[in-house]
Amino acid sequence: MRQSKVFIPTMREVPAEAEALSHRLLLKAGLIKQSTSGVYSYLPLATRVLNKITAIVREEMESIDAVEILMPALQPSELWEESGRWDAYGSELMRLTDRNGRQFALGPTHEEVVTSLVRDEVKSYKQLPLTLFQIQSKFRDEKRPRFGLLRGREFIMKDAYSFHADEASLDETYNQMYDAYSRIFKRAGINARPVVADSGAIGGSHTHEFMALSEIGEDTIVYSENSDYAANIEKAEVRFEPKENGEALLELEKVETPNAHTAQEVADYLNRPLEQITKSMIFKVDGEFIIVLVRGNHEINDVKLKTYFGTDNIELATQDEIINLIGAKPGSIGPIQEKGIKVYADNFVQDAPNLVIGANEDGYHYINANPERDFNVEEFGDFRFILEGEPLSDGSGEAKFAEGIEVGQVFKLGTKYSETMNATFLDNQGKAKPLIMGCYGIGVSRTLSAIVEQNSDENGIVWPKSVTPFDLHLITINPKKDDQRELGDQIYAELQQSYEVLYDDRKERAGVKFNDADLIGLPIRIVVGKRADEGIVEVKRRDNGESEEVEVSNLASYIDNLYTQI
Amino acid sequence: MRQSKVFIPTMREVPAEAEALSHRLLLKAGLIKQSTSGVYSYLPLATRVLNKITAIVREEMESIDAVEILMPALQPSELWEESGRWDAYGSELMRLTDRNGRQFALGPTHEEVVTSLVRDEVKSYKQLPLTLFQIQSKFRDEKRPRFGLLRGREFIMKDAYSFHADEASLDETYNQMYDAYSRIFKRAGINARPVVADSGAIGGSHTHEFMALSEIGEDTIVYSENSDYAANIEKAEVRFEPKENGEALLELEKVETPNAHTAQEVADYLNRPLEQITKSMIFKVDGEFIIVLVRGNHEINDVKLKTYFGTDNIELATQDEIINLIGAKPGSIGPIQEKGIKVYADNFVQDAPNLVIGANEDGYHYINANPERDFNVEEFGDFRFILEGEPLSDGSGEAKFAEGIEVGQVFKLGTKYSETMNATFLDNQGKAKPLIMGCYGIGVSRTLSAIVEQNSDENGIVWPKSVTPFDLHLITINPKKDDQRELGDQIYAELQQSYEVLYDDRKERAGVKFNDADLIGLPIRIVVGKRADEGIVEVKRRDNGESEEVEVSNLASYIDNLYTQI
Repeated sequence: MRQSKVFIPTMREVPAEAEALSHRLLLKAGLIKQSTSGVYSYLPLATRVLNKITAIVREEMESIDAVEILMPALQPSELWEESGRWDAYGSELMRLTDRNGRQFALGPTHEEVVTSLVRDEVKSYKQLPLTLFQIQSKFRDEKRPRFGLLRGREFIMKDAYSFHADEASLDETYNQMYDAYSRIFKRAGINARPVVADSGAIGGSHTHEFMALSEIGEDTIVYSENSDYAANIEKAEVRFEPKENGEALLELEKVETPNAHTAQEVADYLNRPLEQITKSMIFKVDGEFIIVLVRGNHEINDVKLKTYFGTDNIELATQDEIINLIGAKPGSIGPIQEKGIKVYADNFVQDAPNLVIGANEDGYHYINANPERDFNVEEFGDFRFILEGEPLSDGSGEAKFAEGIEVGQVFKLGTKYSETMNATFLDNQGKAKPLIMGCYGIGVSRTLSAIVEQNSDENGIVWPKSVTPFDLHLITINPKKDDQRELGDQIYAELQQSYEVLYDDRKERAGVKFNDADLIGLPIRIVVGKRADEGIVEVKRRDNGESEEVEVSNLASYIDNLYTQI
Repeated sequence: MRQSKVFIPTMREVPAEAEALSHRLLLKAGLIKQSTSGVYSYLPLATRVLNKITAIVREEMESIDAVEILMPALQPSELWEESGRWDAYGSELMRLTDRNGRQFALGPTHEEVVTSLVRDEVKSYKQLPLTLFQIQSKFRDEKRPRFGLLRGREFIMKDAYSFHADEASLDETYNQMYDAYSRIFKRAGINARPVVADSGAIGGSHTHEFMALSEIGEDTIVYSENSDYAANIEKAEVRFEPKENGEALLELEKVETPNAHTAQEVADYLNRPLEQITKSMIFKVDGEFIIVLVRGNHEINDVKLKTYFGTDNIELATQDEIINLIGAKPGSIGPIQEKGIKVYADNFVQDAPNLVIGANEDGYHYINANPERDFNVEEFGDFRFILEGEPLSDGSGEAKFAEGIEVGQVFKLGTKYSETMNATFLDNQGKAKPLIMGCYGIGVSRTLSAIVEQNSDENGIVWPKSVTPFDLHLITINPKKDDQRELGDQIYAELQQSYEVLYDDRKERAGVKFNDADLIGLPIRIVVGKRADEGIVEVKRRDNGESEEVEVSNLASYIDNLYTQI
């Protein structure tokens, strides 16, 4: 395609708010343009890459007998009320009202629609298993859209849903999807690591996320250097082995801690190690207040709390609620109280003697507090984030951390939707049972970002061959010169037979053309310049920068050979 | 693909409200399923056809240097306010408010977005012409969704927009698009006729619609049997040649016409031909009342009125407004009045002597009324629909009528959007000028309907090869029998090398399988039945029903040969 006909608005300077590498490069190389916060247009180069990604996704889905459909973005509120998510989904769900006053969601996901589709038509175990997928724009009203395509409000997803008569069949499809996802990301040129992830409080027993490693990751991955272990930090278990340190229990004592609110401030004021301080935080769990206790160097993980209590309805108490409840501000609360508020403590609180706890009185703490002796703990559990370097739960060694972008997720839904939406089938005994479901997502526009995040150098993008917008970049340095233009046209005509060629025929300075070519990052660049009259052009690889002068008569076979090597 | 894994919920009976042939067949053959009024899911067979249609569209667009992009469905209201369409578009525009209270349109079309995209980046005539297209779901809140995919609220469009430095360049792209559209519809198996269409009151100088002929057409096409003439009836001009019939003008006389309200009732009561009666209707044009007069056998065409008055703001006066204004009900109004309301009369009123007109008094008409002598006409013009059999404006003979579905439209927008949205470029003299634009749409989901509308018989769909969901339908009558199942599997494996095969391996009765196969309508059906043990199968063409028994050893070459003949 002639570059003069393509729309590639490359930029010199990108806006300062573009933090992520992929966001900067996608803007700079003219692939995307923001329409409004979190909403983008995909320009010609990006659209070509998206089409290649979706072609790979389609191939791999079809190879495991997933069948493509296309469901509507407009979803009647009635369906979401059936599943209970119309209220539960909150303000991320975009909603609208039609001319007749009926309410709709703009689909962020399609569990409700697909369940209603299948429940009307699938009646018997003979029609199972069934796996449906679609590729489509989705909508989510993100509170804080950012990182370009990584956290947008309108984005492209491949979503798939499978329906089964039994768990074994779900397991089989889950594993096929897991393998297909691994192939898809590999083919797209992404290093994506499957990690164990949290499946939320309600429904769903088992899930993996596919994380593309990147410098700006939105998620932290905990992994092992000695095993396959990898988990989202939200999910990564902390291994607890109680230690007997034999330290004598000292006498509980109330001390002044003026102006010390955070654990660090208390540690500094009392001149004690941070590990000896505790943090008490008050949460409201399904409306009931509880205290959660962790050591000063640890952070409470609310995803683990949700799983532990089996509810999504958990939030931090407000300062007003705490003052009403305890009579002290958040910086001074502790587990000794007569209000009957249950205390849940992280495992690592139990083997630490002589702790510092809040006194439930502003400006005071207790020192030498010990569980059981001084305060009651309802239950100990794993309520915190793992720290880098701590032992991993699989016993394979120390926890390593990496940043990653979630590009896919596979999820065993079980009967969450089929039960609430009454989607049943008759089993081979003629008995009605709820369909067993799985769901599987790939962020297609996120994948585009992840590819760029992982494939670039200081000059721009370096496309993997499988998804490159064009194979070859043919450049005439000065198309006003007849010999260059004619030779360029001739090479363009010839190479187009076997390759997708972007032909820079623009009347721009050579510097501009080379800059743009590096930014755009096609695998091979062919430059028709001063030696056009001799029939000699320069061929340069984008990945390693190696270049060579090549005789035109020899060019096609030279390119064939070089291209297979990349 | 094994039919047991595909989701094809064929139906015995379709809902009575499915009026259009394509709507009935798409439901019956299990291609679509309604989610809610005007909103559908595309099931696997439909999705495969859509993918083939879009592949044809992409190829033809790229062949004329149109470049694919993907713009967002979420469009900020600010852009629509710039173009003036936020208010003008009315209740067909779906609107929503995000979590921050900002308003968005859900795109029914993308003139605003594409103009804003291009105005920021295209600065010079050197960057022109530029043609961008996308394939995407669009949203329009139809007052009365119907005919399945033909008038839905969420539908798939290919829309393209071109940008030019001068009219000659626009003309060139317009003609290329026109030709590409002709090729696209032909390749998709549709007989689609380009017709001259109305371009609306504001902006746009020239437009063609592509009409697929069908029994249920939403539009009437006026065409010639002797020339290329074809026009939407909204646009088709009525040829007027004044006739002198020498009839004497009789004396104006007021007569009673009790209970006669319509032209036909008045004609019957007075025992006069319908042509001698007139209809007077009162319209409000940009807030001003006018009377429009046509003969009793003619119908007023409000699209022509809009063009004539150069405004979209035309509506019929309400009964209350008419009574207030004239003092009589709609059935008795006429052009003789002292209120100064301007009268516009259709051309064919001027050479008809001794007309019957309303007397502006309930229950009375005048007979023998003559323009100029008895009432003033501000202007005569072409204000009505042409009748079948009337002479065509191109002089090629009688008007013929056909029903059609609009599947595409090409449109010269001119500077309508670039002027209101301030999208300019510098011409080769360095002078800023508004971009000249064209826009071009294809209803992709409508095209799917139109294909079905034109390609079926009493048993179901008969797919054209170019867009068929699968090439071959392989059926084992009884897959429980080892010889049939094994032979079926063997043929499936072999033919899959060269064809897309739908393999009906379901444990269903033969009658169900044959019925489904006819409904689904793949070009060739291969049945493995009783003679499987002899290695003989039946091959049947869907289009003409011819069938033959074929030796399996010979099957592949037989199919190759037969398939090229279809």
